[in-house]
Amino acid sequence: MFKHAQLESVKAWINNPVHGTLPLYARIQRAIRQLILDGTLKAGKPLPATRALAKSLEVSRDTVETAYSQLHAEGFIQRHVGKGSLVSEQVHQLAGKKPLRRPSPNKVAHHLSQRGTAMLQGGGVRDFLAPRAFAPGVPETRSFPLATWERLERQVLKEHGTHVLLHSPPQGMAALRQAISGYVNLERGAHATPERVLVLTSSQQALALCANVLLDADDHIFIEDPVYHGARKAFEAAGLTCLPVPLDHDGMQIERLYQAPQMAKAVFLTPSHQFPTGSTLALERRLAVIEWARLHQAWIIEDDYDSEFHYAGKPKACVQGLDAHDRTIYIGTFTKSLFPGLRIGYMVLPAELIPAMTVARTLMDGHSAPIPQLTLARFIEGGHFGAHVRTMRAVYAERRNVLAALVRQYLADFLEPKVPDGGMQMPCLLNCDIPEHDAIEAARQAGIDLLGLTALHASKHDQTGFLMGFAAHSPHELEVAVKKLADVLRELKKSRTTGIKRAQ
Amino acid sequence: MFKHAQLESVKAWINNPVHGTLPLYARIQRAIRQLILDGTLKAGKPLPATRALAKSLEVSRDTVETAYSQLHAEGFIQRHVGKGSLVSEQVHQLAGKKPLRRPSPNKVAHHLSQRGTAMLQGGGVRDFLAPRAFAPGVPETRSFPLATWERLERQVLKEHGTHVLLHSPPQGMAALRQAISGYVNLERGAHATPERVLVLTSSQQALALCANVLLDADDHIFIEDPVYHGARKAFEAAGLTCLPVPLDHDGMQIERLYQAPQMAKAVFLTPSHQFPTGSTLALERRLAVIEWARLHQAWIIEDDYDSEFHYAGKPKACVQGLDAHDRTIYIGTFTKSLFPGLRIGYMVLPAELIPAMTVARTLMDGHSAPIPQLTLARFIEGGHFGAHVRTMRAVYAERRNVLAALVRQYLADFLEPKVPDGGMQMPCLLNCDIPEHDAIEAARQAGIDLLGLTALHASKHDQTGFLMGFAAHSPHELEVAVKKLADVLRELKKSRTTGIKRAQ
Repeated sequence: MFKHAQLESVKAWINNPVHGTLPLYARIQRAIRQLILDGTLKAGKPLPATRALAKSLEVSRDTVETAYSQLHAEGFIQRHVGKGSLVSEQVHQLAGKKPLRRPSPNKVAHHLSQRGTAMLQGGGVRDFLAPRAFAPGVPETRSFPLATWERLERQVLKEHGTHVLLHSPPQGMAALRQAISGYVNLERGAHATPERVLVLTSSQQALALCANVLLDADDHIFIEDPVYHGARKAFEAAGLTCLPVPLDHDGMQIERLYQAPQMAKAVFLTPSHQFPTGSTLALERRLAVIEWARLHQAWIIEDDYDSEFHYAGKPKACVQGLDAHDRTIYIGTFTKSLFPGLRIGYMVLPAELIPAMTVARTLMDGHSAPIPQLTLARFIEGGHFGAHVRTMRAVYAERRNVLAALVRQYLADFLEPKVPDGGMQMPCLLNCDIPEHDAIEAARQAGIDLLGLTALHASKHDQTGFLMGFAAHSPHELEVAVKKLADVLRELKKSRTTGIKRAQ
Repeated sequence: MFKHAQLESVKAWINNPVHGTLPLYARIQRAIRQLILDGTLKAGKPLPATRALAKSLEVSRDTVETAYSQLHAEGFIQRHVGKGSLVSEQVHQLAGKKPLRRPSPNKVAHHLSQRGTAMLQGGGVRDFLAPRAFAPGVPETRSFPLATWERLERQVLKEHGTHVLLHSPPQGMAALRQAISGYVNLERGAHATPERVLVLTSSQQALALCANVLLDADDHIFIEDPVYHGARKAFEAAGLTCLPVPLDHDGMQIERLYQAPQMAKAVFLTPSHQFPTGSTLALERRLAVIEWARLHQAWIIEDDYDSEFHYAGKPKACVQGLDAHDRTIYIGTFTKSLFPGLRIGYMVLPAELIPAMTVARTLMDGHSAPIPQLTLARFIEGGHFGAHVRTMRAVYAERRNVLAALVRQYLADFLEPKVPDGGMQMPCLLNCDIPEHDAIEAARQAGIDLLGLTALHASKHDQTGFLMGFAAHSPHELEVAVKKLADVLRELKKSRTTGIKRAQ
């Protein structure tokens, strides 16, 4: 029989609300298991008869019987006809030696790897979820033709049936690779074939693959300064040393690559709309970086993340299409042009890299879901993708103009907008003495998201400001948010002035 | 004007079938761009008037005009009223110096990183696509309740609308984490809460995360010998040194961990059905490995990949649920229990590891698609998951028995089946002198997939054989395939005997 304290312990376990999702028999079984593991119930000790325990706990005998059967199946108890149930001997050998209690979490030492610790401290890449003004990089999804998408998905399921439930090829489904190849050749001036497309879940996955397959830990990579933080963090997570290269109005100063004292095996570029400045890499620099890569047998990692949205004529052809030497890896994504929850990005690869990148992808997470791949292929082939991008380009161009006008009207005392030719966000420079961090924090509390520019710079940098996304919000929503931000900044300035006066 | 050779070159480019997907204007634009990049058309050289070129190419003048506009927008040509179009000076600076020609791919030196090369040579983890008998690890999907799944997905889209198109939290949607937590607590005896579940795309992604977040390059990890190749390859890709530990009927010989001359920071286990032997880790060994991890502050990586399918009573509770010290990382997947194309796996983490693992996942590929997550949560909550697993458990149990009987009936001269208590594949040992590799190759040519056992062993090993999947094929299909395999092996044996006689 159980001692009183043991019975109370079982009752407490059963009635603990955190175990409420478990059926009764399982709660009884776990409670007794815990007593055995604790060493409270020693090996060889008899358990109460099922009838007796059922009465004590005020449950049916069947319930206790099920709990005992499970304990028996797991090896915690032995059952003998006539002798009843005993705690198993084998459990004793270890569990009996010392009382095992769950230690409180803050007593447990952290045992991450060095790289795990570094990743944790870097904070990772947090996407903005339900987007608040002015979260950058988030598209407008409220007007997405979801009904069309659903119709195409139903077609896919009807035509392919349960075959689409199986594993898909790790390089991506042929129909989607064909559609992507046609698209980047036509719209981005790329030199792609379906055989050179690798379908991924995101451009972040492409960056992680490049960092690991092309470079080893401690290798150097040139990055833009300022740079897209997701890229820098992916490279650092892979142990690479990032060498920042300054920008000007024409993008990265490619001549610096030739002059750099340290050699790097690769360069990371956002040539279409540099992130975050919005500048476009000039043609002669595109040719110069291709020549640099050829000379040094280095790689160009071209992240063409939102080139669909260019508001001053067609965007320049991508570097990949100009590169006759196959040194360029082109990265594209449907996160910005369609919707973030799709989880489809891709690379266009030099032929020689296809096997290694595909193999590395199988080790990282296998392959991409087939149903969205086939649906997207139809969405592109049916002309819906082109139509959606054209619609959104006009919408975003207007929103860019609206935001620029609003910043000039309401925020002129605080911010100077740098209106970009493309993309989904606008750099705005602080032209007052409010610290960037204070402004971001105060805005956040007022329900407004701002991405600070300082954290994107590698070098010391005295120009503070924000990247303000304009794509996900209507002109009216932008106006409401700008006015609110003006209030926030005005309040901040006032309290600073008061604080400074008081300090004097 | 173009020279004759230049015009012919443009015509050849336009008519090349590989450029057939591009519209005519884009083909003309690319052909001229190529001449400029080649240095064939030098800087300052005039281009033909649009009217003249249109006539030469037998296309409309508008088409040529569009091509020229694009070349101008990209900076390749300058256009002056009255003077026509000239090749841009800036292009000259680089492209003019040397003729740039696309080198043939096999002349390009490979420039993978050392780790990239190692991954490529390891071959990655290839899943079996359209499954042929006896591809292991592939579930039966032909009877999956796809109509129910589609209905639940429609509900999700109707209720959440375009909100499900946005980014989702990198740890996973709350509804799914709740459903997974309830499931593993009830069915696997785990000690989970929704807060400790991290939703991923696959168990492969879980292995890659563990390898990088918990261990550094050159750190040691104990693995089972033989071992699941996907795990070993993920660890090696992360630079870890794998220390193989022998198995017996009760799973990994845990006492070896205590005796090992080299310390490891983690141990990888498949306790429920060891892959590939099918053995179950005995209870006292589960307790012993927990004690080892506590003593050394090491990690237990528990891959519970197909525990849903256990045919001899309920499976033993998972190690995670027995571990009072929070040293166990539990890995689960819906690839086997539902369908591989779903791309949802998960980890149940010690509380202290949640931030680091979540951050590392954002760096690896961001987050998982929200629509399948919400659909799966409903599928579990609505009882469809439990019902499907019960149905498939009965189906697979029958198929296991059928395969064992068929092997004994038709393959007794070649193979000895080791009938497992659970899982989706059966180890069959070669009891004749046919080399494993020859049998696999001959079977493959006859349309039958076999996974060799030798490659799964780290240590020298004289027991050859195959892992034969039985889940994805009906009894009739299994019979046809077994008879075919018998023919293949008989033929192979005959030709070997003849060959040996001839050699004598």
